[in-house]
Amino acid sequence: VESHRNDGTTTLSREIDRLFHPRSIAIPGVSSDPSRFNSGRRYLECLLEADFKGALYPINPNASDIGALRAYPSIRDIPGPVDYVISAVPARHGPQLVADCAAKGVRCINFFTSGFSEIEAEEGGRLEAEILDAARGAGVRILGPNCLGLYCPATGLSFILDFPADEGPAGVIAQSGGNAVYSIMEGQRRGVGCSKVVSYGNGADLNESDFLEYLAGDPDTEVIGAYIEGVKDGPRFAGVLKRAAREKPVIIYKGGLSESGRRTTASHTASIAGSSSAWQSLLRQSGAIQVQSVDEMIDMFLAFLRMPPPRGTKTVVIGAGGGTTTKAADDCSRAGLHLPALPAELRQKLKELNRGEVGRIFGNPIDIGLLIPPDRRLQAAAVLAAWDQADVLIMQVAFDHFGLVTRKDKEQMLGPCIENILDLRRLTDKPMAVVLHSYAAEHSREMAIEAHRRLRDAGFAVFPSLARAATAVREVIRYREWQQGQ
Amino acid sequence: VESHRNDGTTTLSREIDRLFHPRSIAIPGVSSDPSRFNSGRRYLECLLEADFKGALYPINPNASDIGALRAYPSIRDIPGPVDYVISAVPARHGPQLVADCAAKGVRCINFFTSGFSEIEAEEGGRLEAEILDAARGAGVRILGPNCLGLYCPATGLSFILDFPADEGPAGVIAQSGGNAVYSIMEGQRRGVGCSKVVSYGNGADLNESDFLEYLAGDPDTEVIGAYIEGVKDGPRFAGVLKRAAREKPVIIYKGGLSESGRRTTASHTASIAGSSSAWQSLLRQSGAIQVQSVDEMIDMFLAFLRMPPPRGTKTVVIGAGGGTTTKAADDCSRAGLHLPALPAELRQKLKELNRGEVGRIFGNPIDIGLLIPPDRRLQAAAVLAAWDQADVLIMQVAFDHFGLVTRKDKEQMLGPCIENILDLRRLTDKPMAVVLHSYAAEHSREMAIEAHRRLRDAGFAVFPSLARAATAVREVIRYREWQQGQ
Repeated sequence: VESHRNDGTTTLSREIDRLFHPRSIAIPGVSSDPSRFNSGRRYLECLLEADFKGALYPINPNASDIGALRAYPSIRDIPGPVDYVISAVPARHGPQLVADCAAKGVRCINFFTSGFSEIEAEEGGRLEAEILDAARGAGVRILGPNCLGLYCPATGLSFILDFPADEGPAGVIAQSGGNAVYSIMEGQRRGVGCSKVVSYGNGADLNESDFLEYLAGDPDTEVIGAYIEGVKDGPRFAGVLKRAAREKPVIIYKGGLSESGRRTTASHTASIAGSSSAWQSLLRQSGAIQVQSVDEMIDMFLAFLRMPPPRGTKTVVIGAGGGTTTKAADDCSRAGLHLPALPAELRQKLKELNRGEVGRIFGNPIDIGLLIPPDRRLQAAAVLAAWDQADVLIMQVAFDHFGLVTRKDKEQMLGPCIENILDLRRLTDKPMAVVLHSYAAEHSREMAIEAHRRLRDAGFAVFPSLARAATAVREVIRYREWQQGQ
Repeated sequence: VESHRNDGTTTLSREIDRLFHPRSIAIPGVSSDPSRFNSGRRYLECLLEADFKGALYPINPNASDIGALRAYPSIRDIPGPVDYVISAVPARHGPQLVADCAAKGVRCINFFTSGFSEIEAEEGGRLEAEILDAARGAGVRILGPNCLGLYCPATGLSFILDFPADEGPAGVIAQSGGNAVYSIMEGQRRGVGCSKVVSYGNGADLNESDFLEYLAGDPDTEVIGAYIEGVKDGPRFAGVLKRAAREKPVIIYKGGLSESGRRTTASHTASIAGSSSAWQSLLRQSGAIQVQSVDEMIDMFLAFLRMPPPRGTKTVVIGAGGGTTTKAADDCSRAGLHLPALPAELRQKLKELNRGEVGRIFGNPIDIGLLIPPDRRLQAAAVLAAWDQADVLIMQVAFDHFGLVTRKDKEQMLGPCIENILDLRRLTDKPMAVVLHSYAAEHSREMAIEAHRRLRDAGFAVFPSLARAATAVREVIRYREWQQGQ
């Protein structure tokens, strides 16, 4: 179990774990005027809102109190120990800050501050090297610069107001602050909470490999997602990634795979992005799962966390509406899932349950009529779930495909349709994914949002399209096969 | 201009045009009990709601009035001429209905009824052949069977309650009723109205080629979209498609390209789907644009209708947030758009307008700071729009990427940000696309929906992701090049 810590980096992982559990945080440059909501002030408010468990020390040379907290003129004036410092002061004050932190025995400085190696002027690179040297000499670790820092609901670390207070099983490493924020907010909306998230920006000191190694060994983290623009040490990253993927699923969204994308990463986080094909083969060999967006990363989280692993790729798609059903078949095939044809006996059973309602499709995908009574629709779904050739079930609900019906009809149909899906879960332990889509009309969208809420809260993996559900299911199967071969 | 009508099919197109302008419609099997909302009754209510301009004749042997309308025992009993009949009666009554319509001189029967060649039982194919023979002998055209029929806001033809009453420039042919409905509803949501839509199901008589040829010559239609599962006459379709694409953009969503998809189309509309590669090369050679969903079809409509054609692929992406910007670069490259690097002089201008706000990216994509005053942000965008190397502008608004800000901040930022885009349109005639995305938080979604409404109503082409915007822009350029080569 501890094999990934065999390379002498246990100390580093313990060090990072302490960063997620600081006893105290100091924030230089907090505005004392609540209407001047500067970055320092914002961090302070976020930590207060997140109910940070340790001591908070706002730094302001011209104020004695900020809100209900005592303010200090400098880091050195704080009476107790300071574990962690969040800096939003201009880059040019960086060296002085590092000197103060060194004197105080601070463990880590999170430089929200940008204006270092990611800018074009030589001065940025020079300053970054200077603070890095000074920090290393004094045993102070640097997070960033040019990043949002740490989110950990268990200890009350946060960097945005409104972040969820509940813990979850996903650990996320993001070189972009925006992607870190989006992972947390969109993860919450779709039902995936986070254990720990780090936005690490330029990664000048603590970097992607350090955090990946840490999350691989973190018992609170079941799946890992990473948005990476470039890595500092290729061979080390490759080794850490492979060990991490053996432990738990690692989903990688690599940014900057195109030429202009690479130009962008240089000015965003001073990263050398690396070629697309090199990345692809590295990720494939390491057992990592490559995605092209944070949305797809969350798809993978859902497929890993909210479904038992499918035995194989044989899929039964239960949907509504002919056009949708045809699209479902095409999308599954493209993703690499197989839709076995139903045997005559099974088709006969379905037809009997359908009792002469015409226009339905009894192949696979199956278009079970929405107009037949819910109990018979549930029976039909249960017959399919019990079929020994079905490894996975995908249930589709398409709100605008109900045919010739009024809005009231739709509302009356939606409830039983969602109930059917909830009931089916009680009748089968087969892996199930749900697809909610096609809500163009205003009232359909409202219904879809409500249906999503109910199914999400009941623990389902819900996807916005069949294509994305199928891709996520396929990747889970691929990963489990790779893992068994290790 | 009339070249596409040179093959002797003018008569057919005139015939179809008359179907979209019927003087009267009869509907067999309309329930007289308003609480028994059967299919016939639904069609009647739809036509009443759509304010159909001609006479409506509900058929019911046991009622003398239905609502405010006089009911008739059979088609033959109607006093005036009947142009069009919508049938929801069971398939087995089909032959009798055709005989009645032949006697009455009806031009076309829209068989909503399913249970014909798309079902497995031999009886279905036999019945379809029987009604087809009888209709042909009597000069009655068949629409369907197994389809929803015609939508034409100008004449008040409709098949769903709540359909938009306003006309628009898109003509849509759909072999799936669900996809026809979704094209109309989602098109309305995104700002693309329809001239004429036909759901044609099995296409036993009037088929995809007939309607494509008609829409190509229809002066009310500027762009054509088609969802096709299979074609009846390959060579004829190829010829009609090529002539149509010369006239106006034709966007094809071909369903059933996978093996299981093909199995599905057989039971959905009795279609032989054809191989994926054969379709791809046919569409490419014909100048048609292939998409994989109705959503992408609407993307293409927007790019054709709401942007002047770009001169070339050189694109400037104006966005916010580093991770988003990197993704934008990768997505554009993948779609085949080029992002020229900004010359030093232009970068200098942008930096001056930005006045020392650090952490911004002045490459291309450009991350213009959201915190700088709106007038300077607009100036920066105008400088980029005026750059002679920019063929297209893509503006990105990412609601959850605003960094360390409160909800109130977001609301205050959103207004000016949208205003900037509206103002920019007045300063440039360059093609512009807008991308609104990343709204995980509940309040961000509300803001995004409101922003979408404003931009849509101001005439912008708005896309839900950069990848989809870039693909649509690229296809417009490809089509214009193909068209010029003809």
